[in-house]
Amino acid sequence: MTKAELVESIKQKQSFLCIGLDTDVTKIPQHLLSEEDPVFEFNKQIIDATHDLCVSYKPNIAFYETEGVNGWISLEKTINYINENYPNLFTIADAKRGDIGNTSKMYAKAFLEKMNFDSITVAPYMGEDSVTPFLEYKNKWVILLALTSNKGAFDFQTLTTENKKLYQQVLETSKKWGDSNNMMYVVGATKAEMLSDIRKIIPDSFLLVPGVGAQGGSLQDVAKYGMNKECGLLVNSSRGIIYAANDKSFAEKAREEAVKLQIEMKILLEMYLS
Amino acid sequence: MTKAELVESIKQKQSFLCIGLDTDVTKIPQHLLSEEDPVFEFNKQIIDATHDLCVSYKPNIAFYETEGVNGWISLEKTINYINENYPNLFTIADAKRGDIGNTSKMYAKAFLEKMNFDSITVAPYMGEDSVTPFLEYKNKWVILLALTSNKGAFDFQTLTTENKKLYQQVLETSKKWGDSNNMMYVVGATKAEMLSDIRKIIPDSFLLVPGVGAQGGSLQDVAKYGMNKECGLLVNSSRGIIYAANDKSFAEKAREEAVKLQIEMKILLEMYLS
Repeated sequence: MTKAELVESIKQKQSFLCIGLDTDVTKIPQHLLSEEDPVFEFNKQIIDATHDLCVSYKPNIAFYETEGVNGWISLEKTINYINENYPNLFTIADAKRGDIGNTSKMYAKAFLEKMNFDSITVAPYMGEDSVTPFLEYKNKWVILLALTSNKGAFDFQTLTTENKKLYQQVLETSKKWGDSNNMMYVVGATKAEMLSDIRKIIPDSFLLVPGVGAQGGSLQDVAKYGMNKECGLLVNSSRGIIYAANDKSFAEKAREEAVKLQIEMKILLEMYLS
Repeated sequence: MTKAELVESIKQKQSFLCIGLDTDVTKIPQHLLSEEDPVFEFNKQIIDATHDLCVSYKPNIAFYETEGVNGWISLEKTINYINENYPNLFTIADAKRGDIGNTSKMYAKAFLEKMNFDSITVAPYMGEDSVTPFLEYKNKWVILLALTSNKGAFDFQTLTTENKKLYQQVLETSKKWGDSNNMMYVVGATKAEMLSDIRKIIPDSFLLVPGVGAQGGSLQDVAKYGMNKECGLLVNSSRGIIYAANDKSFAEKAREEAVKLQIEMKILLEMYLS
């Protein structure tokens, strides 16, 4: 997917919502457990109930990998289902991979080619040659970890390195590897006030913002400090939507939660983009 | 596996060799392609031919993930084969994972519990809560990326942060999360001269050292600067061993290459540990 297509989708849907498919088999409604593939069945119903309210889906790969071969099958079915039925949705493999060039190439092939995700989250610690193999795919995206939403973000990401915080250095340095047409950044909603400074370094890039809801970040603050003239935001919500109810109404309740966020997003888009 | 058991294995075998099972289906001998699971068959023969010469096997997960469900099956068969037939071998899931606590827990379950690897490589960028879920398993290990063997290591890892290089800060800070009984570090062989300084920070910890062979590092230098009184080293070789030949002699030739390294290691152990 190109940047223009993503921006168009945001404008049409009046939404910059990304729904995190962090599907944990121990947390889904009981009645699904008799299905052949409960995790896929859960995802399918969530997707069918919410696809018009969001612009992106983001399966966190750990939740599938922890189920071994079966998890991998559920993941492949899920991405295929989205690509076949809702090809305009921007798909994110939240995998946080990154290894030496030779190896990153293998991960890139797995997620961007074989499974045909639009993008993958990548950890920056190993530097340029760990990231660039993912950038070799046309109209695919790297979403680089910059400032994450967790407590541990303050262990290294905010250390001062040669007059800049490490995460700022990651933003600066990575601008040499790609641009706002093939690279986005993860910036946690829990650090919304830092978004203004981040925008000075990467004014045009999309930001993937986790941490709204369960992790406590505010959507208004994210929009206030982080939105640019093309919106430039994908705000993720996982648990708050997909686990809104734990019975047969789960998909309907997930839709209700997604509607609430979409309405809030519509207002924020009107406020900042008009 | 405990540290004492690993040290004992090194002494018995007079080897600190780790063999990297970076098995690429496009690079294995043609005659294996008619097997039901060529990747597993290749690994099995490599393992049977080399298990007495090394103390550790390290499948790089990317090489399996890139084959999707089939790759995952090959990986599970490989780790099960090692655990069932050679339980004294230290197994490393070279996965370079790391995410928010909730998610790292899922990766920990996948690799340390379900697949029962002894250890997993973890990226430090997301800090404490991304690493500690892996430390909750008894007699299991985190192998934290410190100073990697690739060119990109110089993008961020060697930046100066508050009077220390970032990788030194990673070493220092992570000492609060675990100790030399449950945490090791990745330090590339291509930076052997930096090992003396690293040993000042973590004198007792094991180091996993990739980059000998194909990537150009020297085993002698690694031993000279990095060995401690319990050896404290696992030196990895992947391509140099497993792709030593591309015909029916591949396992035999892999053994020959492993023997060369084991003899060199025996001499180095006698030189520095006597």
